[in-house]
Amino acid sequence: MSHYRHHVFFCCNQRAPGERSCCNDKGATRVRDYAKKRIKHAGAAGVGKVRINMAGCLERCEEGPVIVVYPDNVWYTYVDEDDVDEIIDEHLLAGRPVPRLMLKD
Amino acid sequence: MSHYRHHVFFCCNQRAPGERSCCNDKGATRVRDYAKKRIKHAGAAGVGKVRINMAGCLERCEEGPVIVVYPDNVWYTYVDEDDVDEIIDEHLLAGRPVPRLMLKD
Repeated sequence: MSHYRHHVFFCCNQRAPGERSCCNDKGATRVRDYAKKRIKHAGAAGVGKVRINMAGCLERCEEGPVIVVYPDNVWYTYVDEDDVDEIIDEHLLAGRPVPRLMLKD
Repeated sequence: MSHYRHHVFFCCNQRAPGERSCCNDKGATRVRDYAKKRIKHAGAAGVGKVRINMAGCLERCEEGPVIVVYPDNVWYTYVDEDDVDEIIDEHLLAGRPVPRLMLKD
């Protein structure tokens, strides 16, 4: 039903100071913008096939920052752009999920 | 990898006046809030099993307002809360997708 091979949602939720941990305090919006640009420059392997989106709270705040890749249903965390580069190059472009960055169920 | 049976993303993108059509001008945030409350009150069939999220632009603006249900990978449009009631009751709670509201591929 979708034209996306991988549809990727970055939790970009921002909580008020003093509340629970949130993905945006850990750089989610910045890294999501970076991922969007990388896919835009990936050419035919990425454009129109991989979609990078922001999302509201994915409810795994303490494990964040969090990404979910659908329809694969694979959940990741990341520290920085280097981790997201690995997810993009391996999973999104080459079809090889990255176990070391996956969230435990 | 997820504890959600259905993970539902409402495009809540808001464009500036005069730009392309956008989901939020058609009530997306209001209807998304409504869906979130309905699941909260659905009891054991919904809470923790169905997750309602907002998302950025899902890039199907002219077909909007748009919802995508993962990992099912079913895309819907809706007019109002009545349509979303049908998606909630039939698809999300009873497991029966609703062809009449699905987007064409």
